[in-house]
Amino acid sequence: MAERLTKREVDYSRWYTDIIIQGKLADYSPVKGCMVIRPNGYAIWEKIQGYLDQMLKDSGHVNAYFPLLIPESFMQKEAEHVKGFSPQCAVVTHGGGVELEEKLYIRPTSETIIWSMYKKWIMSYRDLPILINQWANVVRWEMRTRLFLRTTEFLWQEGHTAHATYDEAEEETKLILEIYRKFAEEYLAISVLVGKKSEAERFAGALHTYCIEAMMQDKKALQSGTSHNLGQNFAKAFDVKFQDKDGNLQGVWATSWGVSTRLVGALIMAHSDDSGLVLPPKMATNQVVIVPIWKSDDEKSRVLNFAGKIYQELKEDIRIILDDREQYKPGYKFAEWELLGIPVRIEIGPRDEDKKQAVVVRRDTREKIFIPADELRNKINSLLVTMQKDLLDKSRSFREENTYNIDSYDDFKQQIENPGGFFNAHWCGSAECEQKIKGETKATIRLIPIEQPDESGKCILCSAESQGRVIFARAY
Amino acid sequence: MAERLTKREVDYSRWYTDIIIQGKLADYSPVKGCMVIRPNGYAIWEKIQGYLDQMLKDSGHVNAYFPLLIPESFMQKEAEHVKGFSPQCAVVTHGGGVELEEKLYIRPTSETIIWSMYKKWIMSYRDLPILINQWANVVRWEMRTRLFLRTTEFLWQEGHTAHATYDEAEEETKLILEIYRKFAEEYLAISVLVGKKSEAERFAGALHTYCIEAMMQDKKALQSGTSHNLGQNFAKAFDVKFQDKDGNLQGVWATSWGVSTRLVGALIMAHSDDSGLVLPPKMATNQVVIVPIWKSDDEKSRVLNFAGKIYQELKEDIRIILDDREQYKPGYKFAEWELLGIPVRIEIGPRDEDKKQAVVVRRDTREKIFIPADELRNKINSLLVTMQKDLLDKSRSFREENTYNIDSYDDFKQQIENPGGFFNAHWCGSAECEQKIKGETKATIRLIPIEQPDESGKCILCSAESQGRVIFARAY
Repeated sequence: MAERLTKREVDYSRWYTDIIIQGKLADYSPVKGCMVIRPNGYAIWEKIQGYLDQMLKDSGHVNAYFPLLIPESFMQKEAEHVKGFSPQCAVVTHGGGVELEEKLYIRPTSETIIWSMYKKWIMSYRDLPILINQWANVVRWEMRTRLFLRTTEFLWQEGHTAHATYDEAEEETKLILEIYRKFAEEYLAISVLVGKKSEAERFAGALHTYCIEAMMQDKKALQSGTSHNLGQNFAKAFDVKFQDKDGNLQGVWATSWGVSTRLVGALIMAHSDDSGLVLPPKMATNQVVIVPIWKSDDEKSRVLNFAGKIYQELKEDIRIILDDREQYKPGYKFAEWELLGIPVRIEIGPRDEDKKQAVVVRRDTREKIFIPADELRNKINSLLVTMQKDLLDKSRSFREENTYNIDSYDDFKQQIENPGGFFNAHWCGSAECEQKIKGETKATIRLIPIEQPDESGKCILCSAESQGRVIFARAY
Repeated sequence: MAERLTKREVDYSRWYTDIIIQGKLADYSPVKGCMVIRPNGYAIWEKIQGYLDQMLKDSGHVNAYFPLLIPESFMQKEAEHVKGFSPQCAVVTHGGGVELEEKLYIRPTSETIIWSMYKKWIMSYRDLPILINQWANVVRWEMRTRLFLRTTEFLWQEGHTAHATYDEAEEETKLILEIYRKFAEEYLAISVLVGKKSEAERFAGALHTYCIEAMMQDKKALQSGTSHNLGQNFAKAFDVKFQDKDGNLQGVWATSWGVSTRLVGALIMAHSDDSGLVLPPKMATNQVVIVPIWKSDDEKSRVLNFAGKIYQELKEDIRIILDDREQYKPGYKFAEWELLGIPVRIEIGPRDEDKKQAVVVRRDTREKIFIPADELRNKINSLLVTMQKDLLDKSRSFREENTYNIDSYDDFKQQIENPGGFFNAHWCGSAECEQKIKGETKATIRLIPIEQPDESGKCILCSAESQGRVIFARAY
C-alpha cells in the first residue's frame, strides 16, 4: 500500500497496469507474453465462469474437453483458417525425447480438432444438434501484449456447435450473442453494442462474425465476445455429412463462439477509478467489508462485539468479511479495500456502537450513509442491487455521451484524436475504404449494427453510395 | 445400444474401454495418447471439481493460474525434478513463425514456473503461507496410454504451497492427504489406503510423498492422489528466502499435491458392472430417471400425467429427469440408463397409476421396490443416501477381503498371480529388494502405512531386519 496508483488523466495505460499489479490481480511471468493470474484476479474469472457456465447450461449446452495439441495437417484443412492462425502458433516439434513425425500446434482455437471428432460422431439427423462448450487455455503468439487484454496464453470458453440447417446455425449464433450481451450487462455491468463484423475483421474461416463491443474509460473500444456462423466451411474441410430423415446425405452447419480472460481486463477498465478497482456487487468475491474502529481497550471490546453481531446477521445473505486485523490502522484498511474494489465498506466506531448504527460507504460514488443497525441487512441488500444497476447505467451513459454521428471525413480525423469515442459513419462496404481509414486514423470498423435505420447516405471516405452507418473506433 | 459390453470376467480391460466408448464418456483422439473427454465424462469431472474445489477453499486455499509453457532452464534448476520429468516433456521450439531462443516445455507439473514467481512474491514472514491451487491441463509423453487412467494430456488440480517451517509444510501435506481420503470415500465412495511412498516411487524433487491408493475390481491398485512435502528443494533451486520476525533470512518450505482426471477412471472401474456404469448418487449428473410405460393412448395420457406430477414433486430436491421420448421402448431406455449409470430408475405403468405407486429400481443391486406415490420423495432421498454408503462399504469390504498378510516370498509370487490383491509384507527398506521384487512379480510398493503396528519381522525377499510391513500390489 506504500505505492500510489498513477492517475487516469496522467497515464491511462499505466493506471490500468498499476491497479493490476498493486491489487495483485496478475503479474508478469518469465515466459514472454504470458501472465500469471493471481488469486485476486482469478477469483473474478471464477465468477465469470460460474455465471456464464450456468447461462450456457440453461440454454442446453454441455461441457467437454478436446486435446491441447493439433496436428499440423488438421490446421491446414481450412484455407482461411490456416492463413489466419498459423503465423500465431506455438509449435511442438519434440515429445518424449524424440523428434515428432508430424508437428503439433498448441491450439490457438479448436475448430479443427473438434470437427475431426464430429466427423466420427455425426452420422444421422438424430445426432444433431451438438451443443458443446469447452473451458480451456489457448496460445496465440502476440508481439505486443497487455495484462488480461492481450496475452500469448489466455483462458477462455469456446463453444462449437453442429446443426442440420443454416437457419439453425444462424439462430444459435444469435442466441449466443444475446447471452453474451446479457452477461456483460447484467453481471459485468458493462453496456455493450451488438453487431456484425466487417469481412476484414471476421474470424478466419467464418461466414460471418457477430460481436459485443464495449467502450472503455479512455473511449477506446474493447471487443468483448464473438459468435461466428461458420457455415459449412469446417464441415467440408473435415467431410462431415449426415443422413437426413429422407435418407439423403447433407452437409453439416457450424458455429463457434467465445469469451476470454480479456473480460477481466474489460471489467477493470470499465468501472475502476484513481483509488483502485471498482467491482459490480455480483462480480465481487466479497461484497461488504466491516472495518471496526477503536482506540482504547474498552472501545475495542464494545466495537468488536457490536461489529461481530452485525457480521453474523449480514452473512446470512451477503458475501461479507470482518477486517479485525490489529496490525493495521483503519485508514490503511480503507485504502486497501478501495484498491481491491470491495463494493461496500461498513465503518463501526465507538459512537456508532452508542447509537446502534453504522457508517456505510459505497465504493463507486464514495457516498456515506448512516444506517441504524436493525435496518442494515435490508438496506445493504438493496444498496447492492442499486449499485449493480447504477454501474450499468453509468457505463451506458458514458458510451452514449461519447458516440457521435459523423458525416465529414475531416471532422472524423480530428475528432478521433480528440475527444475520441465511437463514430457512427456511413461506409460504402468496400475493404479498400475500410483499410485506408484504418491506416490514416487507426480506427477500425468495430461493428455493423444488425438493425439499420432507413437512412440513405454516402461513404465518409469515398462518397459512394453507403450501405448504412457503421461504428468506427480505435480499439484494444 | 446395439453393441454389447464385454463382460468383466472375459476381458476386464476391454470391459472398461467398452463402458467408456459406449457410454460416450470419452473417445480416442487423432493426437497420439490424447483423449477427448465427451460430455458424459466431463460431467463427472465437473462434479469432482465442484466438490473438491469447495473442500480446498474451506481449508483456506485459493485458485490462481500460471503459464502453460516453462523455459527449459527453469526445468533444469532442480536436479531430481529435471531427471524425472524432462524425458516425458513436449517441447515447443517455434513460436509466431520463428525459432525460439530458448525452448519451452509444456508443463508436466508446475513447481518450477510457480517457484520462479514465489521468488518475486515472498519477502517476509508476512507473505507466508501461500496456499495456492491451480486447475489446469498438463502434458507428459506416455508410451502406453489408457483412457482416463494414463493419457499424454490430462486435467488436474495442482496445489503449491509455501511455508515458514518444515512442520507447517508437513502439516499441510497431511491436511491435503486427509482431504483426498475424505473426498475419495465420501464422494467417490471409494475406500482408500493412505500412506507414504518408498524412495523409488516418490515425486521427483520431493522429500517424501504421501498417497491414497484404491483397489480396482481386478484387484490391482490405482494411485488416486498424491501429496508431497518438497522440503526446501524448490526454494533452494529458485533462491526463495524470507525475513523472519527477528530479521533473519530463512529458506522457505514447500508442498505440492494433485488429483487428476484419472479419478474419473477410478470411479468407473471401482463400481461399474457388466451392464455399464454405476455411479454413487453424489457423482451422478442425474440421480433418478422416470421411465413411463404405456401401450394405448388412454394409458399414455394417464401415465404421463401421473409421472409428470411425481417428477415435479421430486425435482424439488433430487436431480431427476423424465424420459418421455416416444421413439424408444421402455426396455431400450432401461438398458441405456443402466449403461449411463443413473443411480435410481422409477418405472411407472398403468397399473402403478391405478394403485398410485411406482416401481423403484436401484442401479447398484438391481433391487426392485414398490413405493406408494406419497412416500416417494422421502424414500428416494433416503435411498440415495443408503446407496452412497453401500457403495463405499462394498468398496471397503472388497479391498479388505483381498488384502493378505504374507510372509513367504514363494507364496507371494504365486498369490500375486492368483488370486491377486494387496499384500502386506515385511520389507527391509532397501531399493534393491524393492526393485528385484518388482522385476520378478510386477508388484510395486504401493505405500508404507503411516502407523505401523509394533511387530518385528524379516524382509520377505532378503530376510534382513524389517522396517515394518508395506503394501505390495500390481498397479495401473
